[in-house]
Amino acid sequence: MSETLHIGRLAIIGVGLIGGSLSLALKEAGVVGEVVGCGRGKPNLEKAIELGVIDRYTRDPAEAVAGADVIFLATPVKTLGTVTEEMLPGLKPGAIITDGGSVKGEVIEMIEPLLPEGVHFVPGHPIAGTENSGAEAAFATLYRGRRCILTPTDNTDPQALALVEKMWQIAGSEGVMMGQEKHDRVLAAISHLPHMVAYSLVNAVGSYDHYEENILEYSAGGFRDFTRIASSDPIMWRDIAETNRDALIEMMEQFERFFSELKDDVASGSGEKLFEFFLRSKQLRDAIL
Amino acid sequence: MSETLHIGRLAIIGVGLIGGSLSLALKEAGVVGEVVGCGRGKPNLEKAIELGVIDRYTRDPAEAVAGADVIFLATPVKTLGTVTEEMLPGLKPGAIITDGGSVKGEVIEMIEPLLPEGVHFVPGHPIAGTENSGAEAAFATLYRGRRCILTPTDNTDPQALALVEKMWQIAGSEGVMMGQEKHDRVLAAISHLPHMVAYSLVNAVGSYDHYEENILEYSAGGFRDFTRIASSDPIMWRDIAETNRDALIEMMEQFERFFSELKDDVASGSGEKLFEFFLRSKQLRDAIL
Repeated sequence: MSETLHIGRLAIIGVGLIGGSLSLALKEAGVVGEVVGCGRGKPNLEKAIELGVIDRYTRDPAEAVAGADVIFLATPVKTLGTVTEEMLPGLKPGAIITDGGSVKGEVIEMIEPLLPEGVHFVPGHPIAGTENSGAEAAFATLYRGRRCILTPTDNTDPQALALVEKMWQIAGSEGVMMGQEKHDRVLAAISHLPHMVAYSLVNAVGSYDHYEENILEYSAGGFRDFTRIASSDPIMWRDIAETNRDALIEMMEQFERFFSELKDDVASGSGEKLFEFFLRSKQLRDAIL
Repeated sequence: MSETLHIGRLAIIGVGLIGGSLSLALKEAGVVGEVVGCGRGKPNLEKAIELGVIDRYTRDPAEAVAGADVIFLATPVKTLGTVTEEMLPGLKPGAIITDGGSVKGEVIEMIEPLLPEGVHFVPGHPIAGTENSGAEAAFATLYRGRRCILTPTDNTDPQALALVEKMWQIAGSEGVMMGQEKHDRVLAAISHLPHMVAYSLVNAVGSYDHYEENILEYSAGGFRDFTRIASSDPIMWRDIAETNRDALIEMMEQFERFFSELKDDVASGSGEKLFEFFLRSKQLRDAIL
């Protein structure tokens, strides 16, 4: 593969924050000829055209991928199998499919068996995002200074892998190679668990009606910041929770053990243990600043 | 009380983020003559002088409050009783003491019985903060656009209360009157519980060494933002957890019920229940944006 990259036609399946931002980054870098968007919501696709996120769109996946050199799948994880099936008739030989799914094991299981010989799949996951969704949320610098985890399998073509790595590099992200199982456990820890915690926290506090008034109105900046990720797209997170179940349950149980230990320390008023618990956490947190 | 406020001498006991920021706000507004700081750490007090947070300092609480019209207690909650005892010999008749403690029930119990007649106590809690601490962390606009909860008791002098409310107004905060019990429950929900959750989350993820490497290094902006409050001062939070135990335990149990419900939904793969759980949370969260 040469040092420069040019993608004649790029198909973005799912023109939201993730798909739209990759398109904008590659357009800004001048490495892509035409970007074809595909999605279900017409208003979102029209908006994407208006904002220059894509050049044209179709709602038919097979039509969207026709003639495409690279196809980026950025729809909720559970739809990736169906959408791959739907686009099969349009795929050209040598096409490279990659995805942005937050779970890799189940996604690979869904997609790999469907693909004809000569069509390449590179499973990927850019570690970036905001709590916003839709084409309007997309921006060219979302991936800058981030990492994109790639989880090649035994079937992954090395040249296709190199091209996808290069593509993410151009978007601003460092490519990191990782096994799919490790990816799914690491993400369960640093992303999926925190979302489950934030969603539970907002529900717990929001449902606390001891005073029959909305106590959330008293919440200061800290609470708002802390719970921002609880505003993330419920469909996306339903799919992640369903497809990364085992690793997520393992981490939820790990969290419960720590939370329960802390609750015991609070209940028994163990000042020293409380201090140690908080200090350990502060040190771990400060180390990743 | 007149519409304008002038505090001839203000004593700040504990010159950190909370105490220092009030001093800076009142200095900026030109409503304070002299600010005397008091604390245990000499380097921090020297820094506070250098930064113009206070005008002079002493490490003796009785000396610090001598001649002071208003005294603001901003040390960790559990020290407030001791510090009040220590300053008793210096208090002038008519002095007004107020505090910034995150817990009100125990603080009132500690302080009120100690005070001589003619010295006024107005329990308060400005709902503002960052994860930073020390005089260097203080800034004049910390309280702008925030609320300060005041929890007067049967013994609280109405004029002293009005003066403290006015003082916070000048610092930029709206005064909100609330019973001490309600304050402690509301704060347990919107502040103390989220801190316990964040501390537990960082410990749980940081202790997950399945791959014998620091997986926190993979954490993107979301995790860093979400866990910022886990960098807060461990001593301050030890004291809060010890002094607001009952309300905190109640909220921790409330959270555990929701988290456990969610875990069951993840385990059973109930897509519809997961979607509803996430959507409810998103709606609650978006309503406080």
